[in-house]
Amino acid sequence: MVYITRREHFNAAHRLFQPDFSEAENLHVFGKCSNPNWHGHNYILHVTVKGHVNPDTGFVVNLKELSQLIRHRVIDKLDHKNINLEVDFMVGRLASTENLAIAIWEELESGILDLGGTLHSIKVEETENNSVIYYGA
Amino acid sequence: MVYITRREHFNAAHRLFQPDFSEAENLHVFGKCSNPNWHGHNYILHVTVKGHVNPDTGFVVNLKELSQLIRHRVIDKLDHKNINLEVDFMVGRLASTENLAIAIWEELESGILDLGGTLHSIKVEETENNSVIYYGA
Amino acid sequence: MVYITRREHFNAAHRLFQPDFSEAENLHVFGKCSNPNWHGHNYILHVTVKGHVNPDTGFVVNLKELSQLIRHRVIDKLDHKNINLEVDFMVGRLASTENLAIAIWEELESGILDLGGTLHSIKVEETENNSVIYYGA
Amino acid sequence: MVYITRREHFNAAHRLFQPDFSEAENLHVFGKCSNPNWHGHNYILHVTVKGHVNPDTGFVVNLKELSQLIRHRVIDKLDHKNINLEVDFMVGRLASTENLAIAIWEELESGILDLGGTLHSIKVEETENNSVIYYGA
Amino acid sequence: MVYITRREHFNAAHRLFQPDFSEAENLHVFGKCSNPNWHGHNYILHVTVKGHVNPDTGFVVNLKELSQLIRHRVIDKLDHKNINLEVDFMVGRLASTENLAIAIWEELESGILDLGGTLHSIKVEETENNSVIYYGA
Amino acid sequence: MVYITRREHFNAAHRLFQPDFSEAENLHVFGKCSNPNWHGHNYILHVTVKGHVNPDTGFVVNLKELSQLIRHRVIDKLDHKNINLEVDFMVGRLASTENLAIAIWEELESGILDLGGTLHSIKVEETENNSVIYYGA
Repeated sequence: MVYITRREHFNAAHRLFQPDFSEAENLHVFGKCSNPNWHGHNYILHVTVKGHVNPDTGFVVNLKELSQLIRHRVIDKLDHKNINLEVDFMVGRLASTENLAIAIWEELESGILDLGGTLHSIKVEETENNSVIYYGA
Repeated sequence: MVYITRREHFNAAHRLFQPDFSEAENLHVFGKCSNPNWHGHNYILHVTVKGHVNPDTGFVVNLKELSQLIRHRVIDKLDHKNINLEVDFMVGRLASTENLAIAIWEELESGILDLGGTLHSIKVEETENNSVIYYGA
Repeated sequence: MVYITRREHFNAAHRLFQPDFSEAENLHVFGKCSNPNWHGHNYILHVTVKGHVNPDTGFVVNLKELSQLIRHRVIDKLDHKNINLEVDFMVGRLASTENLAIAIWEELESGILDLGGTLHSIKVEETENNSVIYYGA
Repeated sequence: MVYITRREHFNAAHRLFQPDFSEAENLHVFGKCSNPNWHGHNYILHVTVKGHVNPDTGFVVNLKELSQLIRHRVIDKLDHKNINLEVDFMVGRLASTENLAIAIWEELESGILDLGGTLHSIKVEETENNSVIYYGA
Repeated sequence: MVYITRREHFNAAHRLFQPDFSEAENLHVFGKCSNPNWHGHNYILHVTVKGHVNPDTGFVVNLKELSQLIRHRVIDKLDHKNINLEVDFMVGRLASTENLAIAIWEELESGILDLGGTLHSIKVEETENNSVIYYGA
Repeated sequence: MVYITRREHFNAAHRLFQPDFSEAENLHVFGKCSNPNWHGHNYILHVTVKGHVNPDTGFVVNLKELSQLIRHRVIDKLDHKNINLEVDFMVGRLASTENLAIAIWEELESGILDLGGTLHSIKVEETENNSVIYYGA
């Protein structure tokens, strides 16, 4: 079993807030991250796939195909977008890094099986100090 | 003459658009950066100050004081904010990295003189691939 | 289960030496790291916490609270300090990166439970080439 | 149990191709990575060793000895070399990052036991976007 | 006057050698960099353009156009190639980082004028420890 | 004229203090950097040399020779040392990053002339947020 990781980027706006909370409660819980006028990040995404090495190619999965899958299903929907308002797979979810990692897992899991690998983890870095990893349910 | 650089960060939302342009023209010129729902970045700011070394301190300027000045005049106004809507020193300016660097220069120039140094350059990194430096008018 | 990581920094002096060894033995085992006049590093600390995502906040733990805990219990005691002479939780321990990671785990484990998460790992980077991870006993 | 990681570098040329394939098939599967005139990378290698902390030294293994082992068995054979043509432990293997990680594991496993530790993982970064981890068979 | 920098990448093979030298002389001057079987690098290229900010766009030059120019004239010719054998603008030149920076300047200078800016510098990083800057003749 | 930069590292202890000041004055001016028990950093040094490209080698200067010069005259004296107590070229100077950059310039200037180049700048990074550049008197 070998683990292979592809790194991709997206730049997006978001806001942390709970619609059931008052503005004061949102400010208390989320601080400056709840600014109603949005803020944003250069997010870094690491998709790790595990599998056996194909003896014909030396690959777990073809990284060009993996990159295309990630771009089609995830990056194109997030890059230069507002995560709260414009991303279909984030509708109804709080736009936290945790929820983003879980949602990206759900977008990629089946497609990676089609490429011949198994999704192992989704890592999302929101800033150079804050990051999240999700290994599936 | 010695040059000293302080690095700071801010995370902000912005949008590139020219109010005199139609949406189609904005899209043509600015591409996905003109998304009306905003996007954002982890901006990195490098402030470089030049001066002679004070023999009593070994410093060009006191970096703690320089950092406080940058935070008070620049970072507190930009961090977790919408550059187009909420930043007093960007009112009436297109929110490009170029204009941001010029505006930050204007905010810091006099305060750095008060600290005993001379502002040499403002570098703003918008992404790991795109950055701007301004050395003054 | 989601894993969230907070990165923090501290700059400290230390020295590797075993008080039961002669200077020659210390030099043989620890090389230049045993210099009696100390040397130092810009340490980078990664604290990883695991837990379920709170549906009200989208968080495993509140990163602002986690960062405050780490600063209060760990960074304030290590930053700009001599690890061998001044850090209460390193008394009687060799100041290796391994022991530092174990001691930081012990300082943070209970406080992270109070925040609603479970400490998963402590990673300490001593230089860009040398790092240690501890997952608990 | 503590995990310690040593980072090393090597710069090498390689080419992805399957001798059983035609040039057209190689181009289809490996794309520009199959260029017959070679291309190359600044590879980054992370060797992670696990073990108990020796109370006399505070170490899992002595990093100076670990670094010498890695250099002697791996780096000296790969650095400024052609991976397809000149590296004894890659003979008969496709020069993919996956196979490189597996081969480096085999070169280091026994030597690390001799140092008193257990090899935990080999991570090879081919570019800042592509990397592989191997944890053994 | 504002300075804007675009960062791009290419992975290539090369070899340092002087055809007028014997193999022994090449080995003496260039060391392991003269390996006849090639080695390679992940090169990082920084193209810095200076100019006045266009009041209609907030740009010195349009970074999308600058990136396309760099890719068309430079990256597509170098990426996954052998610098000594396959790059038209390096024919007859020793494949050092210095000569690469000069040659890339010559490829880009006129095209950047067409974009409305002036080429200020070409920086080529061969490794994280070795880099070259060229500001023109 | 081409500019070539070599990056090197050293890990050292230091303390900012002015022997003419009282402890209270030192604490006021230098803050936690004046801790009498020392602290330390992973310093990064960038030495930039300018010159014409030698047509026989493609080099401004031979980087292997430049690296050896820097190691012999600078790194060996600073690495794993106490800058205030053990470094001959820092005797009688406040151990600030500014003074360190100036002193390293003085150590290297003549030796770089002997290699056929001209020293252009010394950059010392004390932390990822604080750095100094010196271009000579």
